[in-house]
Amino acid sequence: MNQRKLKEFEPIFYPKSIAVVGAGGEDSQKNGALYLRTLLAARFPGEIYPVNPYESEISGLKAYPSVRSIPGTVDNVIICVAAHMVPDVLDDCADRKVKVVQIHSAGFSEGEDEEGRRLEEEVVKKARKGGFRVIGPNCIGVCCPASRVTYGWSPPVEEIGSVAFITQSGGHGGTILNMGQAKGIRFSKIVSYGNGCDLDSPDFLEYFAIDDETKIIGVYLEGVKEGKRFFEVSKKICRTKPMVVLKSGKTEAGKQVAASHTGALAGTEAIWSAALKQAGAIEVGSMEELVDTILVFQDLWRIRGNRVAVVAGFLGGGGGLSVGAADICGASGLEVPPFAIETRKKLETLFPAGGSIFRNPLDMTRAGFNPGILGTILPILEADPETDVIMFILRTEFLLLDLPPEEVHTPNRYLINFARGGSKPIVVVSPSSPTTTEQLAVERELSEAQIAVYPTLQRAAQAISNVVHYWDRTEGDFGC
Amino acid sequence: MNQRKLKEFEPIFYPKSIAVVGAGGEDSQKNGALYLRTLLAARFPGEIYPVNPYESEISGLKAYPSVRSIPGTVDNVIICVAAHMVPDVLDDCADRKVKVVQIHSAGFSEGEDEEGRRLEEEVVKKARKGGFRVIGPNCIGVCCPASRVTYGWSPPVEEIGSVAFITQSGGHGGTILNMGQAKGIRFSKIVSYGNGCDLDSPDFLEYFAIDDETKIIGVYLEGVKEGKRFFEVSKKICRTKPMVVLKSGKTEAGKQVAASHTGALAGTEAIWSAALKQAGAIEVGSMEELVDTILVFQDLWRIRGNRVAVVAGFLGGGGGLSVGAADICGASGLEVPPFAIETRKKLETLFPAGGSIFRNPLDMTRAGFNPGILGTILPILEADPETDVIMFILRTEFLLLDLPPEEVHTPNRYLINFARGGSKPIVVVSPSSPTTTEQLAVERELSEAQIAVYPTLQRAAQAISNVVHYWDRTEGDFGC
Repeated sequence: MNQRKLKEFEPIFYPKSIAVVGAGGEDSQKNGALYLRTLLAARFPGEIYPVNPYESEISGLKAYPSVRSIPGTVDNVIICVAAHMVPDVLDDCADRKVKVVQIHSAGFSEGEDEEGRRLEEEVVKKARKGGFRVIGPNCIGVCCPASRVTYGWSPPVEEIGSVAFITQSGGHGGTILNMGQAKGIRFSKIVSYGNGCDLDSPDFLEYFAIDDETKIIGVYLEGVKEGKRFFEVSKKICRTKPMVVLKSGKTEAGKQVAASHTGALAGTEAIWSAALKQAGAIEVGSMEELVDTILVFQDLWRIRGNRVAVVAGFLGGGGGLSVGAADICGASGLEVPPFAIETRKKLETLFPAGGSIFRNPLDMTRAGFNPGILGTILPILEADPETDVIMFILRTEFLLLDLPPEEVHTPNRYLINFARGGSKPIVVVSPSSPTTTEQLAVERELSEAQIAVYPTLQRAAQAISNVVHYWDRTEGDFGC
Repeated sequence: MNQRKLKEFEPIFYPKSIAVVGAGGEDSQKNGALYLRTLLAARFPGEIYPVNPYESEISGLKAYPSVRSIPGTVDNVIICVAAHMVPDVLDDCADRKVKVVQIHSAGFSEGEDEEGRRLEEEVVKKARKGGFRVIGPNCIGVCCPASRVTYGWSPPVEEIGSVAFITQSGGHGGTILNMGQAKGIRFSKIVSYGNGCDLDSPDFLEYFAIDDETKIIGVYLEGVKEGKRFFEVSKKICRTKPMVVLKSGKTEAGKQVAASHTGALAGTEAIWSAALKQAGAIEVGSMEELVDTILVFQDLWRIRGNRVAVVAGFLGGGGGLSVGAADICGASGLEVPPFAIETRKKLETLFPAGGSIFRNPLDMTRAGFNPGILGTILPILEADPETDVIMFILRTEFLLLDLPPEEVHTPNRYLINFARGGSKPIVVVSPSSPTTTEQLAVERELSEAQIAVYPTLQRAAQAISNVVHYWDRTEGDFGC
């Protein structure tokens, strides 16, 4: 069963050959042309067949007038032509024993007209009869960094990771790629499945449940056709792989938009939330929270409790942030308990009296401009028995203001060394609004070293809380 | 009465002369030395007197062994020496008829020892007897861009504006300066008053109520000594000047930290929230929300209703964002109502069928890569009678991906022209995580043109909601 599923999905994520129908000419800015050029730029190693009846060669490749006229085997067909032309293309796909078709074209059940719905039904019938599976229509399809299959015409993704993302919205596939690149999320696979007329979220979830390359699953949903199946597979997944779900279209206004966007019936808010909770999934309220939460799983995998050690005031100005941190962590269900006596004693020997707070948060304001102190502070907090995770507040504008240029990245070195060798998980909050390349470079260095960096205390606290809560439930309810 | 108050605060914000006690030597990295050098770099036009018994000249200025030995008039004395030395300095200040003393030193009532509390009482006694006012201790003091008085050793602020910020935490003064510079907030005055032993938040509020240079007031509080007076002056202010308040130290953990930070008694959460609401102030939950809300007031001043026109999918990928926008606006109490029939008709003529949604949000995904379309779209939305404010989602990574380099700033031109000339308020949501200087430059150009830019839909929606709510209450309760 598992082997059959893996085999079935192989041409989706690891196709040996791809045909692009509607590949456009050399200078075309149409979707198919852009996609073809991106696939070439990504150095996709399999066969690529441009399909266009008006060209004989595109981007140095022989072009074919139709899928039917391609001589070799075609695993995977990307369709980027107008909706009314799609049924004929599908007949050709059946003829050539294509395994998977991705219909990027819009103009199906997401619209308001009857014709779109009829066309989509025709697609499903032809797929059943022709023996191929369909992703879409109204989608951007698949991204798989390991096989060099690109996400539409987004730039190729170089890093390979263990995060899978399934999305009904093509745009949100782009969102997570963008945030992922900025924040250091590394993907196994991304799928935008649009209207989901054939392969729908439960199909992809069944696959990711057994895909060894995937350890963490993100989902953006507007609705599902087979609710029961969706929740059954979710429940199974959540016992071994964290699943983070953004369900959109929950308010009345959102539902109406969802219907126009992917033709989804959005269901009621309360039912969805209850069912997701029961399945063991982590429900989030925005794409930002989804990315934030995935980042904790990816970088730290597990946090053993909800007790946070907060470090503020590194290079100054930590008082207000310390007070806020306690409030904000509390609002997300985290605790900021006093450090153990022995921890406080160690800290007190390091700071001149006045202006520094040792109870937790640790306000380092009076430690001055000495990044080296992190080499002492971090191991003290690591040894503190009262806390489970360190939240380190780094104000990048102070790095530039208070340190000589050659020292700006020194604090990063201490943080990265600690994250690699320390036994206590650490995340960084970088609340400065970056205005310079140097500030971006500091954040990026941390992200690339797989340290989760958050722009606000709220977002860090909520992400940590989501992860702690997942592990609490997984241990409690599922007995892992 | 008003004239007396303005006169009393003149040496605080517009001092003719400043003495820096503890000015350090040429290479010192101590607070006083840093402050002195910053004041010089800012080209503060009044007299500057470094006070240091061990130096005869500092940074090209004659140094004095004590305040007492300064020959001329001294309006304002900045004290940066250890707490136990402060009383003697204050005797000198009384002798020289100094008008205002800012005590930056920590080590007073915010600590746990009896001595700190005793010292602070002594400060107050000496101030009453000596006839001068005190800001602090444990503060960073005052920033006034118009008079070139800098905020500690933060870089001088060039732009002059109408936003005042009062903060118990010195660090949060730095936070708002940093966010302000990134987001285009322009300040009249900033005051960090620390423990507030003499001049406290109600004093500064009374001043800002009548200060013509201030139109919007932000407040970060951990506690107040005279609650009744605070709420009375707040009530008066809120009738004419929006007042945005972050009250920290509201949870039990936060309260304990607040006590260590500025010695504040934090009070209970429910009482504070009710009193702030009754006063007509806008209570926010974080510094980010405070800045976000002030930004709407500064850039748009007034929004007449809670009905938002959302534009997503400019240069592609707007479907999921559209669905999310309706949910997220709803959660903040905003509406995303369908556009008027005539608006939809106009929009439908502009877009090829399929993939674009016209009901609101407007999903521009299929408009292709033509920035010029904004010149048509924005006036159509301006004329829509069903909406009060435009929320424009701009994905900066698409600008770089889809437009030729010379066109990357073209969409900004349309947005800025519209913001200047249009009759409907507009804000921009830029949800991409910036990874390049070009992306930062696009955002900064908008911020500098006084268009509020938000990193998430949530933050934009909450800020708009706060402002709409303020105007609703101001009209209803206060009859303005």
